[in-house]
Amino acid sequence: MNKIDLYFIPSEIQDSDLIDKLVVVVDVLRASTTAAVALANGAREIIPVVSIDAAGELKQKLGKEHVLLCGERDGVKIEGFDLGNSPAEYESKVVKDKALIFCSTNGSRAMLKGGLGALCLVGGLVNLSEILRFLLGEKKNVVIICSGSSGKFSFEDAVTGGKYIAELEKKLGRELDKNDGARAALYLFRREEADLYSALRNSFHGKFLVTLGFEADIREAAQLDSVPVVPMLSGGRIVRYQPENVTVQ
Amino acid sequence: MNKIDLYFIPSEIQDSDLIDKLVVVVDVLRASTTAAVALANGAREIIPVVSIDAAGELKQKLGKEHVLLCGERDGVKIEGFDLGNSPAEYESKVVKDKALIFCSTNGSRAMLKGGLGALCLVGGLVNLSEILRFLLGEKKNVVIICSGSSGKFSFEDAVTGGKYIAELEKKLGRELDKNDGARAALYLFRREEADLYSALRNSFHGKFLVTLGFEADIREAAQLDSVPVVPMLSGGRIVRYQPENVTVQ
Repeated sequence: MNKIDLYFIPSEIQDSDLIDKLVVVVDVLRASTTAAVALANGAREIIPVVSIDAAGELKQKLGKEHVLLCGERDGVKIEGFDLGNSPAEYESKVVKDKALIFCSTNGSRAMLKGGLGALCLVGGLVNLSEILRFLLGEKKNVVIICSGSSGKFSFEDAVTGGKYIAELEKKLGRELDKNDGARAALYLFRREEADLYSALRNSFHGKFLVTLGFEADIREAAQLDSVPVVPMLSGGRIVRYQPENVTVQ
Repeated sequence: MNKIDLYFIPSEIQDSDLIDKLVVVVDVLRASTTAAVALANGAREIIPVVSIDAAGELKQKLGKEHVLLCGERDGVKIEGFDLGNSPAEYESKVVKDKALIFCSTNGSRAMLKGGLGALCLVGGLVNLSEILRFLLGEKKNVVIICSGSSGKFSFEDAVTGGKYIAELEKKLGRELDKNDGARAALYLFRREEADLYSALRNSFHGKFLVTLGFEADIREAAQLDSVPVVPMLSGGRIVRYQPENVTVQ
């Protein structure tokens, strides 16, 4: 690994930017966190879709058994869906052995974009060290895609992405070649590193989630390495990475 | 003025984000700088266009007299055009009383987007104080559009935008309400404020311009308040703001 690029919003990215790259999609509030929790609690797979219609159609196709419709619009569970986007909802008794059709405003879009890389992981703060361990076992260069917020820059994803870069450089013991976005994210992280919870909490989306009553979700999202699983996109589905069955193409 | 939003790239922006706003478009390397220099040296107007074809068609329409085709692709003058995007080319003897059809990779796109605001200025470091003086004379809220680089975040525009925010807050003696982008840009500026030339020079696009032999343009772009004119978009053309003939709608 020599190079790390970071993009603040998916629309910055051209498909060619992802060729042969290890991609980490970051949507720390809350899809990254929710995905890690769901897989830790036994969900079989998470299928990201962008539109509510596509979610409904896919459920028709997959059948009702062992399938849950999950997702949010403007932070709130979509009407008629089984679950929203709060990690607290994804308890073992609810999600175990289920396929989750997941429709979030920003995370789903970024995940589908990330699928154009050689390999795509979904990373937050709750699974940082596990994802770093995976990345450090590979030789390819890394791209971090911040999901952003309704197509706009989001502070909490930038700081989280910066944390990934800082930790990678620390573990490698050398600086990586960085694009402007990666450099900026690293600087923003350095400013906030003493208190990542507050960095998340004081972002535009963090404040919005507080008004909706989801402050506990922000605390959960800021708990470093509390959910040590690696969500990996494979054939359009996010599954829990198991060391024995992965091949980087 | 209570609120200032900053967008790192034009694609973040929805038209509704610009309604009733004072917009400042920033493309510090180099369109903002070039526009200020051209108007200071007597150019009658600058007409931003996005495509080379549109530039050629407009020239056909406007006639050859008093019209120059200007612009770059990948930092270099477009073949068959009169001028590139280096401020050094825009001398008085070349541009005086001329209409400049201006086709740059990033700046033109951002300027046309900015035209959706109540009023749109083009700002760099060379005309910072003049633009601030204008903004402080108005009551509307401000949006800064960083032009970015080929649709991606650019460090030099972010730092320049952050400087605008820092100076506005200093002159107002109070903090403004800021979106996540404005807050991040302000933090990035704070990190770089001791040496803005180096911040520009060490950006991806700055390094690229150096390889093309344009290091002098970066020095010129970093000269604070060296070209005290206010380029203002009016009816699709950028003209030099004259205090007696402006009306903010």
